[in-house]
Amino acid sequence: MTDISKPFLRALRGERIDPPPVWLMRQAGRYLPEYRAVREQAGGFLNLCYDPVKAAEVTLQPLRRFGFDAAILFSDILVIPHAMGQDVRFEAGEGPRLKPIRDAGGLAGLSLNGIHDSLDPIYGTVERVAEVLPDGTALIGFAGAPWTVATYMVEGCGSRDYPNAKGWALGDPDGFQELIDLLVQATSAYLIRQVEAGAEALQLFDTWAGVLPKHAFERFSAQPIIEIAKRVKAVHTHIPIIAFPRGAAIYLPELARAPEIDGIGIDYATDPDWAAREIQPYATVQGNFDPILLMAGGEELERRTRSIVNALSGGPHIFNLGHGILPKTPIEHVERLLKAVRG
Amino acid sequence: MTDISKPFLRALRGERIDPPPVWLMRQAGRYLPEYRAVREQAGGFLNLCYDPVKAAEVTLQPLRRFGFDAAILFSDILVIPHAMGQDVRFEAGEGPRLKPIRDAGGLAGLSLNGIHDSLDPIYGTVERVAEVLPDGTALIGFAGAPWTVATYMVEGCGSRDYPNAKGWALGDPDGFQELIDLLVQATSAYLIRQVEAGAEALQLFDTWAGVLPKHAFERFSAQPIIEIAKRVKAVHTHIPIIAFPRGAAIYLPELARAPEIDGIGIDYATDPDWAAREIQPYATVQGNFDPILLMAGGEELERRTRSIVNALSGGPHIFNLGHGILPKTPIEHVERLLKAVRG
Repeated sequence: MTDISKPFLRALRGERIDPPPVWLMRQAGRYLPEYRAVREQAGGFLNLCYDPVKAAEVTLQPLRRFGFDAAILFSDILVIPHAMGQDVRFEAGEGPRLKPIRDAGGLAGLSLNGIHDSLDPIYGTVERVAEVLPDGTALIGFAGAPWTVATYMVEGCGSRDYPNAKGWALGDPDGFQELIDLLVQATSAYLIRQVEAGAEALQLFDTWAGVLPKHAFERFSAQPIIEIAKRVKAVHTHIPIIAFPRGAAIYLPELARAPEIDGIGIDYATDPDWAAREIQPYATVQGNFDPILLMAGGEELERRTRSIVNALSGGPHIFNLGHGILPKTPIEHVERLLKAVRG
Repeated sequence: MTDISKPFLRALRGERIDPPPVWLMRQAGRYLPEYRAVREQAGGFLNLCYDPVKAAEVTLQPLRRFGFDAAILFSDILVIPHAMGQDVRFEAGEGPRLKPIRDAGGLAGLSLNGIHDSLDPIYGTVERVAEVLPDGTALIGFAGAPWTVATYMVEGCGSRDYPNAKGWALGDPDGFQELIDLLVQATSAYLIRQVEAGAEALQLFDTWAGVLPKHAFERFSAQPIIEIAKRVKAVHTHIPIIAFPRGAAIYLPELARAPEIDGIGIDYATDPDWAAREIQPYATVQGNFDPILLMAGGEELERRTRSIVNALSGGPHIFNLGHGILPKTPIEHVERLLKAVRG
């Protein structure tokens, strides 16, 4: 079913492509008026994630406007704790609110039974998008990596330093491992089903990986990501998998060497020349353009685009941002970025 | 005047010392009841910074309790914008609030004339502490590095992603350079006077260096730090200088090679084994212990302390945290940490 002539998938298989395929993290999002219109109709944010018709529509919107080389499933990383039975809400303008889990007692309230009942609408979104995907465009499924999902489950909200999640992970690593193990199981099952529904590549977002000391990064970020990739590939051998542990630059070369990892996302603070030397020999490199520069614009927009494309032109490269596109980004800046990448 | 037999200063001059000298970032702070008592008397936070008697007292408090190898001047990085004429306030429980500067017009309101009038009480604090410093203990002066100070000046408050400061720095780098140049001048003059008042080493905190792309890190974090170090050393040739650009791990080895930089602070996310290989050959390494583990405690506290000490035992090392001590840290945990370092 998968068309391996798609540039995005070819790049993930290690091919150098000129110009590089391009998509943008959060490309389906608030900077698009057509997204805001659907979001308003949907009511709450989770309603939108669980509505396959509307979620498929917003997944496809940026493709129509910009012709990106990949679509990414519109969903949220917190559907996993929600499916496991944790109370998850999105308050307007405030971000997620969860009933925090702080210890083994809290874990007892989570269950892996029946997660697919809750996640079924997401698979429906993947199916709908896969059916109408433009030729040459790939469909990416995704999930949050266990560490990042765990930070929300433990803190109960976004946080700057994750005192509770890190306190648990660093102070009682064996206890915290139980939460991570549950997330590895749930996330693997979730991603396997996304592939069955039509996802052609998978990305694991570990947005808060950068706050972990080395030993904890290895145990709670890298190892769970690799374990999930192994479990998914045990079922779907050829599915390419991108890992994006943000803020963890010096630890990426080792992760890139894991045979289960096909691509590595690099954030805006990671030197693309360094990534070309240290990561590209082992994995496709994706990312790096600073979303704040995309919002700010100016001549630097074209200059920095060229600089990233040049730095990574010697190996497999997927052009992307170093973090999600910001809601106030002017649409013309996205058009200029694409023109600068594609020439 | 400076006693070069002090372990902290010997380590900064490149000597391997066993056990390593130790101090903790924010060691004068809210986790100490004696600090909270003085802070309450002082009224606002800036009042405390500008009161040499009280600021000297809180600088000395952690030495009395723990016998650290260094004291660090109690002050705040925002005294520099304040001295340059920007409106700076600290609202209780909310952190700093500044009248934001967003463009060249805002820069016109800043002045370098008379900064020492405003900063004079800080020099008074340094003098008082230097007079009564215990034998063998060194006194560290400090300032914020230009990039981090600029983020507060532009955003007007703490921020997560620094959209305005980064937007200016990335979108209009030549315009932003004017703000950085002003900060280089003010900060150099400020640190020169701290040395004259009795500071025996200096630390430049670049807490938000980690959000910059490589080219911007070089221009707005590393280069200004090196320029300040050059200017200070042009007057005080032998003063050791520690740079702490947090979250910028892969860029640290290059900074460590700058001859003006004697020590490099590493945050909790930077692998100490990597730092031993990549930084220690060029500069003394300081830092790394996770303040959240210090707060959490457990047997991991001793295990991770030993692991850091071992990793860095082959070269010059100053034991410290990877970020400031947290207000809820139990005092017994600090005692255990010191015992684990000193054996």
